[in-house]
Amino acid sequence: MPAALKQLAELIGADLRGNPDLVIHRVYPIDQAQAGDITFVANPKYLSKLETCQASAVIVAPGVDAPGLNLLIAANPYLAFAKILTFLQGPAESGKGVMPGALVADSADLADSVTVYPGAVVGENVKIGAGTILHPGVVVYADAVIGSDCLLHAGAIVREGCRLGSRVILQPAAVIGADGFGFAPDGAGYYKIPQVGIVVLEDDVEIGACSCVDRAALGETRIGRGTKLDNLVQIGHNAEIGEDSILVSQSGIAGSSRIGRHCTFGGQSAVAGHVTIGDNVTIGARGGASGNVEPNQVLSGLPLLPHKQWLRMSMTLPKLPEMRKELQQLKKRLAELEVLVKEN
Amino acid sequence: MPAALKQLAELIGADLRGNPDLVIHRVYPIDQAQAGDITFVANPKYLSKLETCQASAVIVAPGVDAPGLNLLIAANPYLAFAKILTFLQGPAESGKGVMPGALVADSADLADSVTVYPGAVVGENVKIGAGTILHPGVVVYADAVIGSDCLLHAGAIVREGCRLGSRVILQPAAVIGADGFGFAPDGAGYYKIPQVGIVVLEDDVEIGACSCVDRAALGETRIGRGTKLDNLVQIGHNAEIGEDSILVSQSGIAGSSRIGRHCTFGGQSAVAGHVTIGDNVTIGARGGASGNVEPNQVLSGLPLLPHKQWLRMSMTLPKLPEMRKELQQLKKRLAELEVLVKEN
Amino acid sequence: MPAALKQLAELIGADLRGNPDLVIHRVYPIDQAQAGDITFVANPKYLSKLETCQASAVIVAPGVDAPGLNLLIAANPYLAFAKILTFLQGPAESGKGVMPGALVADSADLADSVTVYPGAVVGENVKIGAGTILHPGVVVYADAVIGSDCLLHAGAIVREGCRLGSRVILQPAAVIGADGFGFAPDGAGYYKIPQVGIVVLEDDVEIGACSCVDRAALGETRIGRGTKLDNLVQIGHNAEIGEDSILVSQSGIAGSSRIGRHCTFGGQSAVAGHVTIGDNVTIGARGGASGNVEPNQVLSGLPLLPHKQWLRMSMTLPKLPEMRKELQQLKKRLAELEVLVKEN
Repeated sequence: MPAALKQLAELIGADLRGNPDLVIHRVYPIDQAQAGDITFVANPKYLSKLETCQASAVIVAPGVDAPGLNLLIAANPYLAFAKILTFLQGPAESGKGVMPGALVADSADLADSVTVYPGAVVGENVKIGAGTILHPGVVVYADAVIGSDCLLHAGAIVREGCRLGSRVILQPAAVIGADGFGFAPDGAGYYKIPQVGIVVLEDDVEIGACSCVDRAALGETRIGRGTKLDNLVQIGHNAEIGEDSILVSQSGIAGSSRIGRHCTFGGQSAVAGHVTIGDNVTIGARGGASGNVEPNQVLSGLPLLPHKQWLRMSMTLPKLPEMRKELQQLKKRLAELEVLVKEN
Repeated sequence: MPAALKQLAELIGADLRGNPDLVIHRVYPIDQAQAGDITFVANPKYLSKLETCQASAVIVAPGVDAPGLNLLIAANPYLAFAKILTFLQGPAESGKGVMPGALVADSADLADSVTVYPGAVVGENVKIGAGTILHPGVVVYADAVIGSDCLLHAGAIVREGCRLGSRVILQPAAVIGADGFGFAPDGAGYYKIPQVGIVVLEDDVEIGACSCVDRAALGETRIGRGTKLDNLVQIGHNAEIGEDSILVSQSGIAGSSRIGRHCTFGGQSAVAGHVTIGDNVTIGARGGASGNVEPNQVLSGLPLLPHKQWLRMSMTLPKLPEMRKELQQLKKRLAELEVLVKEN
Repeated sequence: MPAALKQLAELIGADLRGNPDLVIHRVYPIDQAQAGDITFVANPKYLSKLETCQASAVIVAPGVDAPGLNLLIAANPYLAFAKILTFLQGPAESGKGVMPGALVADSADLADSVTVYPGAVVGENVKIGAGTILHPGVVVYADAVIGSDCLLHAGAIVREGCRLGSRVILQPAAVIGADGFGFAPDGAGYYKIPQVGIVVLEDDVEIGACSCVDRAALGETRIGRGTKLDNLVQIGHNAEIGEDSILVSQSGIAGSSRIGRHCTFGGQSAVAGHVTIGDNVTIGARGGASGNVEPNQVLSGLPLLPHKQWLRMSMTLPKLPEMRKELQQLKKRLAELEVLVKEN
């Protein structure tokens, strides 16, 4: 959906320097952009690329010039780029209704403007809000409630009674509400504890492909508004994740842990069960929290250390064999010296 | 399904102190339980909560009193809680047969009391036992054999020829029998080795959401009776896992390894290929076994250490940069002292 | 599909010693093979098993003898085994067309010889080449292009516009083209960056069960010809993986990283974002590359070290608490000695 540059400037609240009627067709990376494209520079180290850039226009931060290019000057060029890209994509497809080959229970209550693709399955008493799209292979179990303008990609599964807010996105094969991992040892083996709670995904949550948010044993597992999970992430039963947090791929939060707001968990990081993590905590890739973490910290490693301390520790690790050798040499030299001193 | 307290006492073999005719509707956590609910105290540190507990009844261990509450006194309150919760849930839905929208091959042999939901697919010559439930989106390939009273959740996949015992549970998108990861280097690249073996899941096995148990190259991959896998767990081809073992989320067992009985693998832990792990081994979260492990041990870390030794090592790690500095200072001081002594 | 030994010798270019007309029915492991079977010895340490082997024939390397057994002598017995196993399996089932219960858009362009099983869904304008098989529950979104002789297992998902070469294999629930994990911080929370790029899987790529290859934000994410991904592997948006590389289960490559050819990534290993890894790099299980890696190296650990150096470091780690104690003792002894010397 092409747009005039002045339209895009208005959209993002940018100053426009250049031709307001220039028609923009695409957003493209600075290296590959051609005539008709808009590009952006968010990182100052790429500013030099503007000299050879073939784009018709560029989004830049205040104070940047680019002779010969039309400019949109925005306080946050990266955010401006995201908003323009969204706009040029056009609105999501409008409600196609329940398409042939979709399997929807009679008792399900679907807003008129939903789209249910062929091969999607909707169970008894499910409620789905306006504008929501279910791709093929989506399965929604009985009694689940899904808000408006949600996007459930192919193979995403929402189990019984779980509740999704509005504008929730499930990437393909995301699993919401599988049984939590709860078993009572009965001597010989394990007796399954029924998992009768639910999952609540608040508004604007996104769950990555093949990520799993387990239903609570009793009560709820809850992901706060605006929180985003990458692919292959695990959230255990009865966990609570605060608002606007980020969990990168292959990270895992064990059962009953409570994570604060504005937290970030790096790839393959982990949080043990029954742990509390404060607000504004960042745990680096492969970091592991085995106990509570106070708010407002950047930590890495297992055990967790302040990130800079962890970096120092990491850089020292390779010296370990040499340190051991030196230690033994020192010991020997000291012993010799002790003898020498005592002989005197 | 409400029940009288005496009925529950009989179910779990508990002593009842209080009103045997009290009707119990729900099991609820001690903090949230209301009149009509039963709760439990399994961990002595929560006993003080009994004073303000609003439940009508509570399951406790012998020797515990709770004035004003009806008591079920059980040797293992946690197990008793699980059994009562299961009972109050009522029996699983009875056999609904092959529902409209299910796709079942003519040659498949299904017991009368199975349930095949809309959108489930059953291939040629598949056998399914009594009481088994296939949710929407389940796919069972040709020649697979599934026992009785199994529960296959949405999107679970059982590939050709694999065999499930009875009471097996597959959480959503569990994948049983994908090709093992086997390739023969042919100089330039890799030649795929056909994976013509199967997977056997014995009775009472549970496989978590998005967990993968690969088929054997030749022969079988086998998960022993009663063993439970959490979500996102990987089991390589030709692995054998003993009975009553537990694999927590995001752990992985590489190909051809043999794991004993009553083992526990923590989250994100791993076992290398062609390794033997004895019975009653616990490997802590993110532990990694690169070689064989003798039975009856609790180990952590990479390399694996006895858990307490690993804890000590972990607590020392942050001191590493300081240790290096001290070592260099000692070296300098010692050299100076050596000079001093030799000069004298 | 049984075959005469001479036929198999010709297939793999092996020297035959024994009965050329012997009919071979199966390939079986050396311990379990019976009359009518062929087995193989690729690892010299198993040669002693030939003495009690019940197989009718065995594939061996040049220079090996096995009295009483028919021999196929091949330079690479493991590769020969794989080729014979493939041959005895017979060709893949021939094109069954669009089967009843499959849901294929009218605008999709399918070669005559494809197979689309019941419950598979093919979107608008999709193109699928000759001989390709889509199992039940496969979902191919609009505008995707799939080459010839591909095998898409149940629940595999290919999102809009993605392109698969020929002979690509997707194991069950593999997800190709989910949105990359891209968000622009907007002060309070995160604004989703539309992911408008695609994924390209070149010829002969295999993607494991529940593995995820994310679509690019702009441009493409690309997996090179012949590269194989195991299960539960994550490939971030805009990553590029070279040809003939191997990624073992639960490994992850973050966004925008470029991986060379002939690389191997062990289980649970990881590569950070925006990193370049040269050709012929092997990163051991759970290794982590946080920066660029020069070609032709075998590395392990986090931080990455040459594998042998990492092994030494690992073996020293358990000594760390003891080292700290010794260091403190040395410090004390040195201080005492210093006093002693200075007093003199």
